[in-house]
Amino acid sequence: MKITAAEIYKSIELIRQKSPVVHNITNYVAMNNTANALLAIGASPVMAHAQEEVEEMVNIASALVINIGTLSKLWIYSMFKAISQARKKSIPVILDPVGAGATIYRTQTARELINSVPPTIIRGNASEIMALYDDKSKTKGVDSAASSDAAIDIAQKLCETHKCVICISGATDYIIGKEKIMKVKNGHPLMTKVTGLGCTASALCGAFAAVEKSPFTATVKAMAVMGIAGEIAASQSAGPGSLQMHFLDTLYRLTEDDIAKRLKIEE
Amino acid sequence: MKITAAEIYKSIELIRQKSPVVHNITNYVAMNNTANALLAIGASPVMAHAQEEVEEMVNIASALVINIGTLSKLWIYSMFKAISQARKKSIPVILDPVGAGATIYRTQTARELINSVPPTIIRGNASEIMALYDDKSKTKGVDSAASSDAAIDIAQKLCETHKCVICISGATDYIIGKEKIMKVKNGHPLMTKVTGLGCTASALCGAFAAVEKSPFTATVKAMAVMGIAGEIAASQSAGPGSLQMHFLDTLYRLTEDDIAKRLKIEE
Amino acid sequence: MKITAAEIYKSIELIRQKSPVVHNITNYVAMNNTANALLAIGASPVMAHAQEEVEEMVNIASALVINIGTLSKLWIYSMFKAISQARKKSIPVILDPVGAGATIYRTQTARELINSVPPTIIRGNASEIMALYDDKSKTKGVDSAASSDAAIDIAQKLCETHKCVICISGATDYIIGKEKIMKVKNGHPLMTKVTGLGCTASALCGAFAAVEKSPFTATVKAMAVMGIAGEIAASQSAGPGSLQMHFLDTLYRLTEDDIAKRLKIEE
Repeated sequence: MKITAAEIYKSIELIRQKSPVVHNITNYVAMNNTANALLAIGASPVMAHAQEEVEEMVNIASALVINIGTLSKLWIYSMFKAISQARKKSIPVILDPVGAGATIYRTQTARELINSVPPTIIRGNASEIMALYDDKSKTKGVDSAASSDAAIDIAQKLCETHKCVICISGATDYIIGKEKIMKVKNGHPLMTKVTGLGCTASALCGAFAAVEKSPFTATVKAMAVMGIAGEIAASQSAGPGSLQMHFLDTLYRLTEDDIAKRLKIEE
Repeated sequence: MKITAAEIYKSIELIRQKSPVVHNITNYVAMNNTANALLAIGASPVMAHAQEEVEEMVNIASALVINIGTLSKLWIYSMFKAISQARKKSIPVILDPVGAGATIYRTQTARELINSVPPTIIRGNASEIMALYDDKSKTKGVDSAASSDAAIDIAQKLCETHKCVICISGATDYIIGKEKIMKVKNGHPLMTKVTGLGCTASALCGAFAAVEKSPFTATVKAMAVMGIAGEIAASQSAGPGSLQMHFLDTLYRLTEDDIAKRLKIEE
Repeated sequence: MKITAAEIYKSIELIRQKSPVVHNITNYVAMNNTANALLAIGASPVMAHAQEEVEEMVNIASALVINIGTLSKLWIYSMFKAISQARKKSIPVILDPVGAGATIYRTQTARELINSVPPTIIRGNASEIMALYDDKSKTKGVDSAASSDAAIDIAQKLCETHKCVICISGATDYIIGKEKIMKVKNGHPLMTKVTGLGCTASALCGAFAAVEKSPFTATVKAMAVMGIAGEIAASQSAGPGSLQMHFLDTLYRLTEDDIAKRLKIEE
């Protein structure tokens, strides 16, 4: 299996043409960035969290992104409702378990969400992915303290149990599907100094999954685009403030050639 | 009737001098942009949504902006309280019915807000404006799918029924008042790729209405300033990330000459 | 007592090395900026407000920042829980009483928070600080209308009563401790046109207090870094949009030399 720059760019063209509605129930910190990144890639973001409307909003969406970054009781309730409706409608659900492992509340919420209706894709850092399975792993805030190797093992178990794609993001992103694994080695360390870029990655997984049949392929493509756009933006940036700006500009202007020049995917 | 660059600039000078307090009950996505745009134009933004304080905050405000972009029960309750207090104090109320038509919850909330105390100005895209009146119109997420022509008809009915100014924003903005209509043809397509610029337009309507007696004139001026600042910003931008930045810089530095060179208002 | 550029830079190096977790319960408007500023200076921001998890999150934090900018009942409840836990754990608590004096709800909440468990540092503008003590002071929205002189008097009383450091921010920042006062004269007027930079200052106080034994010294250092980064950013900026971007870039790249060239601290 091989994913080429041409195939990735074809998905971007599809997103730009179809402008799929991506429904986000996400955290307050990353909401603005996430919406802007979805617009920049060509999707149509919607943010809605009221239990009175989430099901109806899911009905007009082509993907649902659930992010527990600033969770609270009423929002969690709406997450369950939205996920359940998304499954009925057979649209892809992306879960970002932000800070799982940092508090029992986050860990339990993430696990219950997964157990109620398994998401199509779960994207988190190594600590967060491990916390979904293993009580012994520890998270330092929302940053990753765990090793990728240990996390891959857990991810494979999660993948098997819940039939979903797991993405462990980090310096190398690992995308784990049924009996397969791919590595995306794009990205830049400065990206870790901008808040919400992990959340943005999850949202882009939603945009790609909306136009791409295979959730595994969609995740690989989304993570490659994140990393490549981050690299290009970092090369133009004096720090994390300008990185965020150039990142959005780059997503908007990304060409097949940009991708071909930088793409680093390994099996 | 004619609105000149000199008159628009005079209002900007008034905003910069008086720094009117604009009270916003708005959505999580656009809150930061909106506050920054109000500061850049010279106004003094306040964000407050707790039912315990909205009435008191309205009392120190010169305009109230209500935006239902990420609505929920408690926030709606506070919107009603704030609107009612604004009417008692006779300060202008601007309603932005974000996503009306996309879900029943949004459509009903927007209609109930209008029916309880008619706002001074309603600003939305064609789909949203139509949803305030016509059950048959459909919204695709928070983007506009409806034609402006059909929306103008609805807007005139809303204007007549509720004695308020309606702004249908789009490539051409239509401002509809009692037996009058004006078109603002400023703006740039890249603006649609930045989240919250519609919300920003509504907030600027609040700033102009705070210093301008006629809500109709205030709306025309605000929309012209939005469009012109967007054009100038777009001419300096590589994409939506830099557009947002240059937009704020442009609002802050806007001169009478900038306006005179670009103003495109038609009756 | 004298605080040198070398000492300030040493604290920045400590922040960059230790990457202390700073737990924020803050407002929706400034959440993104605040997280980005903390990342840029080298700290590890966490945003969490659910009563179910705030105590546990405090347990992994090295400082707690409480900001009442968009307060509501449930959030206030969590603020009390978090402050109380922070005191048990003996980590520094920074309170930003945004808009105290503007509404009774804000004034009372700020006072009750202080009376329940005195914070380590309180940072606000002159109006806000005065509102914590004196019912006669008035706030115009969230901007400062009060004179610094009157506020210093109040601040000294607050400091004595609650054994905490008070920072009155403005063109000159006054840092008031037990029988001591220092002035930071860094900063730039354009900073007042960017929303949430006051909130960012409070968050930076948290980052410095996390690595610095004396809360007084930590506050002086944080305010000096804010002001200096703001000056450097303003010198590169065409307006408030670019200021926000350059501010983050500058925080990230700040050198001892940058500080030495510009530092203006007076006793």
